[in-house]
Amino acid sequence: MFATRRIQHCRVCGARTEYRVPPDDNRERATCTACGEIHYENPLNVVGTVPFWGDQVLLCKRNIEPRRGLWTLPAGFMELGESVAEGALRETVEEAGAQVELLQLFTVLNVARVGQVHLFYTARMHNTTLAPGPETMEARLFRQDEIPWDQLAFRTVRQTLEHFFADRQRGHFGVHVADIA
Amino acid sequence: MFATRRIQHCRVCGARTEYRVPPDDNRERATCTACGEIHYENPLNVVGTVPFWGDQVLLCKRNIEPRRGLWTLPAGFMELGESVAEGALRETVEEAGAQVELLQLFTVLNVARVGQVHLFYTARMHNTTLAPGPETMEARLFRQDEIPWDQLAFRTVRQTLEHFFADRQRGHFGVHVADIA
Repeated sequence: MFATRRIQHCRVCGARTEYRVPPDDNRERATCTACGEIHYENPLNVVGTVPFWGDQVLLCKRNIEPRRGLWTLPAGFMELGESVAEGALRETVEEAGAQVELLQLFTVLNVARVGQVHLFYTARMHNTTLAPGPETMEARLFRQDEIPWDQLAFRTVRQTLEHFFADRQRGHFGVHVADIA
Repeated sequence: MFATRRIQHCRVCGARTEYRVPPDDNRERATCTACGEIHYENPLNVVGTVPFWGDQVLLCKRNIEPRRGLWTLPAGFMELGESVAEGALRETVEEAGAQVELLQLFTVLNVARVGQVHLFYTARMHNTTLAPGPETMEARLFRQDEIPWDQLAFRTVRQTLEHFFADRQRGHFGVHVADIA
């Protein structure tokens, strides 16, 4: 489950919070018992890319938990002050050191169970120079028949890769919206 | 600007926080001076719909700040446990009491300045029954030439309406991704 009900103290004054339904609301929110501050908890965006070079796609072997040692597309939590595209590009540089040009928003995948939305862009690699960051053990290019399908870190990565190869085959890249159960 | 640097106390233990760059990170995060908990602050999704009935679009006159008295499409903050579509549908019911069928993801608009992403679905209304909730003064249908362009609450609403009427004229609805400066 997503990490809700974790707010035990008020961010403004430090007093204890209680989960209550505020006036004009219909959900319980962590509410400060001293100053009344209401603390909302909302879904997070995970933003990334499908970097490709010819008929190959770039994957990164995770060096951090969760799913350490499994393969992923470069992706991470969107930060304040950036767009989805800027976040996706930043993660591609940080995790793989790849130089890419973002092409289009490609998948929007709801993972409601963990309170996340995963958004991936297609990204054309400018060259094959890679410089994986500390979160990545190894970054390398895979042809479709080389993809380690049974060693992928996340279902959103699997589904994004499946759409990528299907769309490439039919010669047209769409925007794919889906829910991950 | 987006509301960052507002976390003054730790949500876990209530002690003071300080903004510091954690190990293996490159941004300042509110970090507890007692227990070390790191508090991340990330963008929020605002999800809504363009409800239409024949050649008319449904707008709501806001009964809450900000922009009280101005017109908006039904939209609000995405909640934990729901998908983008579920949130968009929920807001349409809460703010307008409209019965709709969601058709497709239509706009994805980055508002990086305030740390938000606005996502709108097109939505076919089942009927013209409306039952505005407490956040709405009035809900009504507008033909294109009746839209109160100078009394719209948000630029994302304006841009979504502009795309809607343009796409309707060309007879094809796409997915529009843009940055709002």
